[in-house]
Amino acid sequence: MNPADLGLPVDVPSTALFTDQYELTMLQAALRAGTADRRSVFEVFTRRLPDGRRYGVVAGTGRVLDAVENFRFDAGVLGFLRERGIVDEPTLEWLASYRFSGDIWGYPEGEVYFPGSPILRVEGSFAECVLLETVILSILNHDSAIAAAASRMSAAAAGRPLIEMGARRTHELAAVASARAAYVGGFTTTSDLAAGFRYGIPTVGTSAHAFTLLHDSERDAFRAQVDSLGRGTTLLVDTYDVAEAVRTAVEIAGPELGAVRIDSGDLLLVAHRVRQQLDELGAKNTKIVVTSDLDEYAIASLAAAPVDAYGVGTQLVTGSGHPTCSMVYKLVARAQSADPKAPLVPVAKKSMGGKTSIGGRKWAARRADADGIAEAEVVGTGPVPADLADRQLLAELVKGGVVVAREPLDTARERHIAARAALPMSAIQLSRGEPVLPTEYA
Amino acid sequence: MNPADLGLPVDVPSTALFTDQYELTMLQAALRAGTADRRSVFEVFTRRLPDGRRYGVVAGTGRVLDAVENFRFDAGVLGFLRERGIVDEPTLEWLASYRFSGDIWGYPEGEVYFPGSPILRVEGSFAECVLLETVILSILNHDSAIAAAASRMSAAAAGRPLIEMGARRTHELAAVASARAAYVGGFTTTSDLAAGFRYGIPTVGTSAHAFTLLHDSERDAFRAQVDSLGRGTTLLVDTYDVAEAVRTAVEIAGPELGAVRIDSGDLLLVAHRVRQQLDELGAKNTKIVVTSDLDEYAIASLAAAPVDAYGVGTQLVTGSGHPTCSMVYKLVARAQSADPKAPLVPVAKKSMGGKTSIGGRKWAARRADADGIAEAEVVGTGPVPADLADRQLLAELVKGGVVVAREPLDTARERHIAARAALPMSAIQLSRGEPVLPTEYA
Repeated sequence: MNPADLGLPVDVPSTALFTDQYELTMLQAALRAGTADRRSVFEVFTRRLPDGRRYGVVAGTGRVLDAVENFRFDAGVLGFLRERGIVDEPTLEWLASYRFSGDIWGYPEGEVYFPGSPILRVEGSFAECVLLETVILSILNHDSAIAAAASRMSAAAAGRPLIEMGARRTHELAAVASARAAYVGGFTTTSDLAAGFRYGIPTVGTSAHAFTLLHDSERDAFRAQVDSLGRGTTLLVDTYDVAEAVRTAVEIAGPELGAVRIDSGDLLLVAHRVRQQLDELGAKNTKIVVTSDLDEYAIASLAAAPVDAYGVGTQLVTGSGHPTCSMVYKLVARAQSADPKAPLVPVAKKSMGGKTSIGGRKWAARRADADGIAEAEVVGTGPVPADLADRQLLAELVKGGVVVAREPLDTARERHIAARAALPMSAIQLSRGEPVLPTEYA
Repeated sequence: MNPADLGLPVDVPSTALFTDQYELTMLQAALRAGTADRRSVFEVFTRRLPDGRRYGVVAGTGRVLDAVENFRFDAGVLGFLRERGIVDEPTLEWLASYRFSGDIWGYPEGEVYFPGSPILRVEGSFAECVLLETVILSILNHDSAIAAAASRMSAAAAGRPLIEMGARRTHELAAVASARAAYVGGFTTTSDLAAGFRYGIPTVGTSAHAFTLLHDSERDAFRAQVDSLGRGTTLLVDTYDVAEAVRTAVEIAGPELGAVRIDSGDLLLVAHRVRQQLDELGAKNTKIVVTSDLDEYAIASLAAAPVDAYGVGTQLVTGSGHPTCSMVYKLVARAQSADPKAPLVPVAKKSMGGKTSIGGRKWAARRADADGIAEAEVVGTGPVPADLADRQLLAELVKGGVVVAREPLDTARERHIAARAALPMSAIQLSRGEPVLPTEYA
């Protein structure tokens, strides 16, 4: 079964309108001025990490590749642009045959990043590159924010499974992307069926209070659930009295009961009590799942509690205080003429308010010490120093308009865990701090 | 042209997988236990407003109606559920013919709400209602969070136009919903073409630094833009030196220049200087648009500045510190048996941690004082008191599975402005405070 054939909401036929209007009007003006064909290099980077964070996590790269491939102006879209008078006829004609034909290099998905890291480099004519700004930034800014929160949570969970269950707290399709980004950041499963369908992420489910309340007693509800879903199911034990619910649960399911879920109260205290009670009832293998507004700090605070899995919702899908990254998409170099052989000139805004950036087409490498631990993010525009040649971070993703770097989501997930492990230990401290690596400009 | 015919990403063929797995497993268990057909009432409400906020804004209702209508399990979805073993065959059969056939009442879109307000009431069999939990909450929690931020910003802007331009800071489809919610909350236009396409929101665009940097000089760039887009265009004047850019802009476009945009620096100071310079150059009608990490406080601080429009991105689409609401979807009443005439019993969780809620099918009304100013949100489960009968808030949205309350987006926008205006004046104070109306339980 190929999910893409099913027309489900998670696949989109065109991404071309995920675009700010000014990209099209700039295109029109450049076409008329004869500057649209100038070879251009755009880079995605961020000037800073969210306050107190020690590293960023690149996520969404796979979705960016899909978006670039599906960036097409069909008759319906062109009709809309014409009817609204957004661009003129020559521009509409140009858009009708739009296919990105340039090159994209970038940090592979799951890699960590720091201020100034050239996370993505898009190269081609000004016209073909400028149009991609909004959709590329939407994807990377959203997905990377979620992955960064997920990574902190997975570090705090120290190997215990993490269930993504935030769909109800964010836009229904942002939820699917969030489940994907969370998986890259180290989560184990998701409750979101669309994410399971589209990306193959393992899905799980327990039960809600509504199910208990539907029945004439908690006992009836537990029996209904166990009868239908088996003894391995997870029973929700905090609708009325937890101790009574745990007793009833084990009475009905026996010691083979899969798990109980606790969704309110002082989780540390309640988990200890429930563990003791389960053990006394002989249900030594019954697991305890906790949920209830968890974030990385709450997860860390439960490290010594007898908890077997964490379910995380709101704080994950809102990036644990930082729901977006501040990545920008900037022209860093362009040719002096439309001649494809014209040399590239570095360009950069030179203005007020700290919004300056560094011009020129960049490479990046992560320098490591003798033990293999990363010690600096090195970014440069000239030749790559010999000692950094095999520590380069940018990988080829699109070549001449063709995607050349598709990979399973598990690859990105494993890459993230490896990249994080190669950072200094202080990277996974939850307390606020500076980026764990300095960015050096060569 | 009917946008729905074009297969664009903003219309989705099915919403049935925007669902947490437990909803399907609860359905399976209830079908088997014979409790799935019990008539049930679910309500959406929130226990609190985001910290310091004085009112909430209902947004997304129109999207909820679309989602309920499109909630269908087609062969592809059923195949996925079967292959993954998520539910059993009897449940799959039941899902294959799923159509919501119940009733939905709710606060109309754009209405304000308070803790405990029964924002949406979904009534039908347990089975048909329980499945809608996640998609309803996703939409309302996201869209209402954005609309609440937009409403504060539009109050702060005091009539000056607001441009939504946050697409690059959030998921590409959350961006479309954000533009829609921002419009409901009082924004004027959006930069997001998909939002213009799908919802008819007026779109606008200016220019980016990349366009200036593409050209050999700022003068060349301005000339290219004016030649192509006319003198009424908006020129971005902060790529290099603002004063020089303003001079060049008026030289090229003349006093008919539409607007200049300032995207960095001390906006208050720079706006005053630019206004003075424009006036001295005779460009008295040229407008000033400011952008650059604006939020409601920054907008308010520019009230005395010569600013003609605000462009808002990040802070809007992230809900200005509150990217989600805490709305929940709870079973509040259900029949004692599957008999359709069985009386409803109020139900509620009674547990730890402040997560209790009030059982029973609710009405709500906003009591006003003699001057027509709202003074309390009154919520009750019994008969509606006579003096509140014509102040009731819930409207019929879906009747027997059929949507009966579609309306243009402008209606929701006007409703919001009227509802906000009927609140006590302190509602639009930006400072942190308590909900501007108390919620009283009758």
